[in-house]
Amino acid sequence: MIETINLQAKLAEFSEHGSPRTVTRFNELDVMVVKVMGEFVWHKHDDTDDFFLVLKGRLDIQLRDRTVTLGPGEMYVVPKGVEHCPVAREETTAVKYPTPSTVHCPVAREETHLLLIEPTGTPNTGDAETAAPRRVV
Amino acid sequence: MIETINLQAKLAEFSEHGSPRTVTRFNELDVMVVKVMGEFVWHKHDDTDDFFLVLKGRLDIQLRDRTVTLGPGEMYVVPKGVEHCPVAREETTAVKYPTPSTVHCPVAREETHLLLIEPTGTPNTGDAETAAPRRVV
Repeated sequence: MIETINLQAKLAEFSEHGSPRTVTRFNELDVMVVKVMGEFVWHKHDDTDDFFLVLKGRLDIQLRDRTVTLGPGEMYVVPKGVEHCPVAREETTAVKYPTPSTVHCPVAREETHLLLIEPTGTPNTGDAETAAPRRVV
Repeated sequence: MIETINLQAKLAEFSEHGSPRTVTRFNELDVMVVKVMGEFVWHKHDDTDDFFLVLKGRLDIQLRDRTVTLGPGEMYVVPKGVEHCPVAREETTAVKYPTPSTVHCPVAREETHLLLIEPTGTPNTGDAETAAPRRVV
């Protein structure tokens, strides 16, 4: 029996970065959640478009000619064959010191949560040799 | 050029209920947003699974043997061939009267916002004759 899928609850089940979890399948597609931090690798998928929806945090999808930035509730499709490198970007936070001055202080890269949809079996790096294993939760 | 898609901004562009808007396509699938209120129709899709993700509000997906209830951030896949009838369920709100008594008063059905993904060309009622036109925004 297929059950209701609560994306936050699925994300709470693991803490690793860069290791997508398949939460359900439909029409021979894997629906996955993943936590990412820092930079992924440059890659492309020759035969499939790559679907990204940000659930939490920020994601820069670096393309060779520009960078697309996504926040929560924003999505982007990288067309098949297009090289890209996703990176959970470094955030800066205003820090107030005892003096009246306010400086911007870089903080640890923000953990970003994504919903990904790919045909079942698609390697996440575009290469089966280097792809992360895709576990079902 | 494919652009960033902000789901809230896309939803703000229209107010009709039951009229899905295609916000992008990938791998021959339409990614759609739709506003729903009240009950849809009983239907099934013989060849495609039906993907629902609630962005706002509540959705009951009535099946013949039970009802699945989804809130924001929850998703469900109705398998191909399974009859279902989605309904944006009636909410009740606590209303305080001048007397100390508090009653629960039914309010208008809540508008619910959904993300849907279906193969391009799939009629939303399972029947091309009765399907809503699918506009691209």
